[in-house]
Amino acid sequence: MTLRENAGRRRTRRGNAASAHEKRKVDYRRLRNPFPPMNVFSEDRIEAIHDAALNVLETLGIKVLLPDARRFLRSGGARVDEATEMVYIGRDMVVAALETAPASIPVTAGARHRDITLELGNLVFQPGAGAPHATDLTRGRRPGTDSDFRELIRLTQHFDVLHMVPPLIEPQDVPTHLRHYATMDAQLSLSDKVPFIFSRGTPQVEQSFEILRDFRGLSDSAFQAGAHCYTIINTNSPRTLDIPMAQGLIDFAKANQVSIVTPFTLMGAMAPITVAGAMTLSHAEALAAITLTQLVRPGAPVCYGTFTSNVDMRSGAPAFGTPEHFKASLAAGQLARRLGLPWRCASGSAANLNDVQAANETQFGTWGCLMAGATVIIHAAGWLEGGLTVSYEKLITDLEVLQMVAELCAETPAQEAEIGLDAVAEVQPGGHFFGAAHTMERYQTAFYEPIIGDLSNFGTWEERGAKDTTTRACEMWQRILADAPGPKMDDTAVARMRDYIRAKSEAGGAPPES
Amino acid sequence: MTLRENAGRRRTRRGNAASAHEKRKVDYRRLRNPFPPMNVFSEDRIEAIHDAALNVLETLGIKVLLPDARRFLRSGGARVDEATEMVYIGRDMVVAALETAPASIPVTAGARHRDITLELGNLVFQPGAGAPHATDLTRGRRPGTDSDFRELIRLTQHFDVLHMVPPLIEPQDVPTHLRHYATMDAQLSLSDKVPFIFSRGTPQVEQSFEILRDFRGLSDSAFQAGAHCYTIINTNSPRTLDIPMAQGLIDFAKANQVSIVTPFTLMGAMAPITVAGAMTLSHAEALAAITLTQLVRPGAPVCYGTFTSNVDMRSGAPAFGTPEHFKASLAAGQLARRLGLPWRCASGSAANLNDVQAANETQFGTWGCLMAGATVIIHAAGWLEGGLTVSYEKLITDLEVLQMVAELCAETPAQEAEIGLDAVAEVQPGGHFFGAAHTMERYQTAFYEPIIGDLSNFGTWEERGAKDTTTRACEMWQRILADAPGPKMDDTAVARMRDYIRAKSEAGGAPPES
Repeated sequence: MTLRENAGRRRTRRGNAASAHEKRKVDYRRLRNPFPPMNVFSEDRIEAIHDAALNVLETLGIKVLLPDARRFLRSGGARVDEATEMVYIGRDMVVAALETAPASIPVTAGARHRDITLELGNLVFQPGAGAPHATDLTRGRRPGTDSDFRELIRLTQHFDVLHMVPPLIEPQDVPTHLRHYATMDAQLSLSDKVPFIFSRGTPQVEQSFEILRDFRGLSDSAFQAGAHCYTIINTNSPRTLDIPMAQGLIDFAKANQVSIVTPFTLMGAMAPITVAGAMTLSHAEALAAITLTQLVRPGAPVCYGTFTSNVDMRSGAPAFGTPEHFKASLAAGQLARRLGLPWRCASGSAANLNDVQAANETQFGTWGCLMAGATVIIHAAGWLEGGLTVSYEKLITDLEVLQMVAELCAETPAQEAEIGLDAVAEVQPGGHFFGAAHTMERYQTAFYEPIIGDLSNFGTWEERGAKDTTTRACEMWQRILADAPGPKMDDTAVARMRDYIRAKSEAGGAPPES
Repeated sequence: MTLRENAGRRRTRRGNAASAHEKRKVDYRRLRNPFPPMNVFSEDRIEAIHDAALNVLETLGIKVLLPDARRFLRSGGARVDEATEMVYIGRDMVVAALETAPASIPVTAGARHRDITLELGNLVFQPGAGAPHATDLTRGRRPGTDSDFRELIRLTQHFDVLHMVPPLIEPQDVPTHLRHYATMDAQLSLSDKVPFIFSRGTPQVEQSFEILRDFRGLSDSAFQAGAHCYTIINTNSPRTLDIPMAQGLIDFAKANQVSIVTPFTLMGAMAPITVAGAMTLSHAEALAAITLTQLVRPGAPVCYGTFTSNVDMRSGAPAFGTPEHFKASLAAGQLARRLGLPWRCASGSAANLNDVQAANETQFGTWGCLMAGATVIIHAAGWLEGGLTVSYEKLITDLEVLQMVAELCAETPAQEAEIGLDAVAEVQPGGHFFGAAHTMERYQTAFYEPIIGDLSNFGTWEERGAKDTTTRACEMWQRILADAPGPKMDDTAVARMRDYIRAKSEAGGAPPES
């Protein structure tokens, strides 16, 4: 069959393709990681690191400040020295825990299309979290407030590519004994994505569970039948599990809710200066926390995690999006695959404003997480100053990168219609494809449309005010906050939540425990 | 053996490690690509694209404007229609050409440590090339000049991670019949890296070869015994090979110098709107050019290449560093691996200034090339406005990313010393590793030191003038141009070259041919 005959034959098929004329819409809500995992260490070195971490737990031990956690670990077979609070965890205990920790964790959100499953191969993005400060071009850098928290939740809600809600900033204008009410109110009334609960002692956690249960209309047993929220557990590196973190592991395991265990190990500061050394310590601490959850409730949902980067050895300042950070992410991915557990990795930037350094560090860090095969990537948008500030503009500009990554998760068709020999035949040498039928059928949906990237030429861009990307991002978040409708809400549930919060606040709230 | 015994045993080995106390120095000059190649299409779709490209050449043909090139192709077996200048290349001819095209091309530079080998698996970076304009913060955006060309060559020379010299900008203040003298003088007198020669007709190419041969002190046969320079061949998509490009392929093949064939196919403009379609056209054009080189001289060094991105379908403006650009790079990588040839891919940005968009697009595009397994990545630093401008500051800020990528090419040790159980044992829970022996032995060389990234905290950064990255980059290139010594030069050779150029200029130069 000649090419021209072939082209004729294909032409009859075109009717089908023509029905795809609507506006481009790629679903960013459920992503599978399309990137081949990259290894930084050989398999035998990963075994050596895993073995060294088990050695650390067994021989050097970990300090566990919460008596109840020491009790759980002792009853599981650990040797405990109550005087020093040191716990020595045998490798058999770790092996047993890894057998019951689930490889796949379905998490129910406020709407079915927001449900996620935490498992190896899936890809879940979170914006930057935990910053004391917020910053934007119009209002400057300031301590985070409840109003900032609510605005940032609305921006997080607005973009499908952000799959879970983290605590972007710390609402410092809300007293600590009432703060969990404010963060639960914001997350549940402004978003239908999977919410976060801080582990700051049992009273706050229990009340947060109660708010969530009631808001979702779930009985206690329905709530415990599956995961509906998550917490982050940072060990105190080196080798310490403090009271609220240990308590969080216990409270979340008991309630069958998700703990994401992420030792924060800066090479040369809280961890050995080498990638291999820092990962050994991080791995040991993560395994200790995972073991605790499985002693509390075998099968409790728990994610492995790491946040390992380096410091600037001249100043001691933390650095992110560095080659060493990238390599540590790769090593963590190898260890996570060895365990078979879903895991969280982190991007980030140490830059002090949303500029080229900030963009490059965050994107570089994100690629490290992507090539490491991370299930959850946190701090993937908006995080500045090594986590001291979340920038509204950076949230938008990093989102562009995440959306472009999400585009790479979608399949790219390459059947005869896309190979398009008829189009090639239609356009003569020296011609162009702008008006070709093949183009006309697809031009509305063929390409990703940047949300903030400006593709106009220099002259047009100058005429329009020569605005840089950060300025355009500022205009965009203002537009979203002015216009975006937010998710459909059950007003009765919101009112009920606020009644509960009012009553509990009047009764004195619940101070954090430490 | 217990951990503590183990630590004791290792301590005796430390003496060796301690000798590595000197300043960190990672060799960026010869890189192997450490990233696992990523596929966008299944193997059978790659076969379908390859087959469709052969079909294009055989049945639709390619317009070849140069009579001598048509003659070579006809004598190789192609059907030629002289009236329309269309050439129909049989697949057997392509297969034969691919058998003689070398899989590995050693290229000799001005100094042995600058020599490179173009082959699959190696990684070679080039800055942005071919821009009519130059821009920097101090002097603004202007048509490129000889002075800009020379400054940009010096900056390219300064960084080991840039392995080949491209024509960064067009020195528009030099008349076109003398321009090749200016670009050869700049490249040879200011750099010892592999130089570029424009294919603008035989007279300019022959004189450029002559200048290079004489500058390197090579006889004609010694010159032709191996590659010493390269040219870029852009087909005129769709399906046209113009006179200077066809002549360049012939001239470079005859002289055994490197042609890098890169159709520039913008999806929806000069190529079909689909990734698969654009790659089919690009592949066909590249195969035609490769076939021509092998007919001229079997075994002539030639690189496969692609530069396929998309346009903004609203404005027709070219876009770079997009998801479609990324996917096209991946497809090209699959096709290059199918051919077994070294190949060139391109990064880039459509942004109008060195800001967040510019950084994100270039880095995103670069990751596409890296994961595609490209041998040569051009436009990896400095390229703005889709190639209309090269920015001095962006050259510096993109270089930071390339250096970080180069760091990932280096092996990361994970032997017992790096796993560092003795360091973990040395630091008690709640302590830190800043003063640990394990840290002290390594702190001067453990981490990549950013050239432009500022890791200071917000207060310090503000005190120091709150400079953004582009401002710091401006200070850096000014410092380099003021201070950098440049490579060791043979002053006699430089003087001889200038004598030659003076004589040839007085004799009327050599106008470009088109």
